[in-house]
Amino acid sequence: MNKVMIIGAGGVGAVVAHKCAQLPEVFGEIVLASRTLAKCEAIAAQLPRSIKTACVDADNVPELVALLRAEQPLLVINVALPYQDLTIMDACLEAGVHYMDTANYEPLDTAKFEYHWQWAYREKFEQAGLMALLGCGFDPGATNIFTAYLAKHYFDEIHTLDIIDVNGGDHGYPFATNFNPEINIREVTAECRHWEDGAFVTTPAMSLKQSFTCPEGVGSYNIYRMYHEELESLTANFPTLRRAQFWMSFGDSYLKHLEVLGNVGMTGIAPVEFNGQQIVPIQFLRALLPDPASLGPRTVGKTCIGCVVSGVKDGQQKTVYLYNIKDHQECYAEVQSQAISYTTGVPAMIGAKMVLQGHWLKPGVWNVEQLDPDPFMADLNAYGLPWTVVENPDFTLV
Amino acid sequence: MNKVMIIGAGGVGAVVAHKCAQLPEVFGEIVLASRTLAKCEAIAAQLPRSIKTACVDADNVPELVALLRAEQPLLVINVALPYQDLTIMDACLEAGVHYMDTANYEPLDTAKFEYHWQWAYREKFEQAGLMALLGCGFDPGATNIFTAYLAKHYFDEIHTLDIIDVNGGDHGYPFATNFNPEINIREVTAECRHWEDGAFVTTPAMSLKQSFTCPEGVGSYNIYRMYHEELESLTANFPTLRRAQFWMSFGDSYLKHLEVLGNVGMTGIAPVEFNGQQIVPIQFLRALLPDPASLGPRTVGKTCIGCVVSGVKDGQQKTVYLYNIKDHQECYAEVQSQAISYTTGVPAMIGAKMVLQGHWLKPGVWNVEQLDPDPFMADLNAYGLPWTVVENPDFTLV
Repeated sequence: MNKVMIIGAGGVGAVVAHKCAQLPEVFGEIVLASRTLAKCEAIAAQLPRSIKTACVDADNVPELVALLRAEQPLLVINVALPYQDLTIMDACLEAGVHYMDTANYEPLDTAKFEYHWQWAYREKFEQAGLMALLGCGFDPGATNIFTAYLAKHYFDEIHTLDIIDVNGGDHGYPFATNFNPEINIREVTAECRHWEDGAFVTTPAMSLKQSFTCPEGVGSYNIYRMYHEELESLTANFPTLRRAQFWMSFGDSYLKHLEVLGNVGMTGIAPVEFNGQQIVPIQFLRALLPDPASLGPRTVGKTCIGCVVSGVKDGQQKTVYLYNIKDHQECYAEVQSQAISYTTGVPAMIGAKMVLQGHWLKPGVWNVEQLDPDPFMADLNAYGLPWTVVENPDFTLV
Repeated sequence: MNKVMIIGAGGVGAVVAHKCAQLPEVFGEIVLASRTLAKCEAIAAQLPRSIKTACVDADNVPELVALLRAEQPLLVINVALPYQDLTIMDACLEAGVHYMDTANYEPLDTAKFEYHWQWAYREKFEQAGLMALLGCGFDPGATNIFTAYLAKHYFDEIHTLDIIDVNGGDHGYPFATNFNPEINIREVTAECRHWEDGAFVTTPAMSLKQSFTCPEGVGSYNIYRMYHEELESLTANFPTLRRAQFWMSFGDSYLKHLEVLGNVGMTGIAPVEFNGQQIVPIQFLRALLPDPASLGPRTVGKTCIGCVVSGVKDGQQKTVYLYNIKDHQECYAEVQSQAISYTTGVPAMIGAKMVLQGHWLKPGVWNVEQLDPDPFMADLNAYGLPWTVVENPDFTLV
């Protein structure tokens, strides 16, 4: 029986558990583990078949190793916090289990969005005959594979890449988040880096925006150029890229709320003395905001995430756009999560399937674009994230 | 010796104490009382001469009466909270002390900005041979007296009144308040009322704004029509007024911050359960914002507050603008407070002087526009708030 262990019982963990549970012929046994057993049990109760749950502190390598040795899964699907990637990789090495995740390792105190900590494990995983598959959510993940697929089938050489991530969802609240707003504030306030002629170029945060009209009537949105971790691996793995940029949509109102909350100190992570108690402002803010779990049922609209690649095929210059559109309400009806968690969790399930079925299994540490995109792309169509290719689309990007 | 008791040791109380202390020939003895003795002592330590301090709970009538009987001041200058006007009036009646304040009574649970609670004391004060002087800050206060002064000297009959309150100060913080932001939020979210043809007309909050260019280079600001308490007494005391409006300046950034903080619940006054403690969001917000006491030294720019009155003189239609401009830094240099506290505290001191010197002393409950404006206007020039009259100014208001 193919047994996997999912570590992390947040929104993405729930989607991965749902999707794996739907495929018993691939995922024969499932263990869902997290620091909070109750969260695992709540997810397990939603599923069409029985899975195991376990309590584990993902910061604690011996505890992880003990659980892995007891359960002996073939693969760990790490959808815990990015701070925990290295402890889980260490535990997998020690227990002899394949590893995959959806986001690069981050030290607790700084957001670098860099792969070098995990790439440093290449030799260890090779020598152990184990695989570590990095960044197999949507972005990074599906976007890397879209790029690899376009490079393989539509181009002899790719020259520019624009990844465009639009969330056209509306939960109807003036402001709410389905994740830690601190992470989003760090993203929008971080300097932008994009790839240009062989090096990363730094520009001020949020200093370049353009309007982008999504296909299929999803709507027009302001998209802002920012750094995103897949730019590092994609420019390393596709050295013909002359320019690579990442764009994300933000509404004016959302940005206004983030700015004001930052201004008054409500997004701070340092404790503040108040009435004799130490209070972390962002934690108090989260207590005031709508419960993230309440957003799923009320979020309407669609996500539209894809890659615009230009390059040369048979001596001809061309541009191709490959995208997925996903409806928030459709996701909620299927797995009781909105599209943000869904679009991350489904590629994680498919990545795990690629490993278990042998399509991608090979020792070492790999980013997803280094592996054959074709079986993964076929599974996106089969398992809830169908995609579309438009050759020479009718828009022009900055 | 003329003895006064100042109740309230906030920003305005500090200014009143400074200004009274500068005039020993009028204010022979000064007692500064508040719930927090340390605040009184900190103010007393800044003054050029010695004053008494006392601790009193202004919500507690017997405690107030005991202090008044012990100290036997001629007059109480109430610059405590508006919720405490009635208890202090009751105590003054019981102890036989004249009374004055700078803001109308407010019940704790609702902001009505109405005088009827205090006007109901007329007979009591008359029968006791005591005076209660209401609303003697800047607005209400100086603005009422400006109106009375213009009506007396420039018109046979006044027809329209526009009170314009511009604070062109800049403290350099993205957002900070020198008062409880809850009160400001209630002001800007309250429906607007203005006087039109014999009745108050209600319009949506902040629905009418115009740009106003202050004289003497103070700058141009957006001013918003809103309700302010002096409209009630002025329209009662000047029944020839066909229209009376109040306008206040708000910066776009300030309004944006208020809107967002309201949206996320940070301005709420109902306690929220957090980490096993009951936390009132607006109190936590105040703990995050810059200490109001820190604003004085860094606030630059000027306030510009005045009245535009139109009417008839000798059969001729005319318009007259009477205003004061005050520089924040100049105030700070004199009394260690910025201009918001200064422009409220100085008229309070002058009103007290009017009572003690007999210019205004008469039993009953009085709004300031019912008394002779001339000695008060002379003292504004003498004690830090010089004013200017412009006949037929070169602007046109909505």
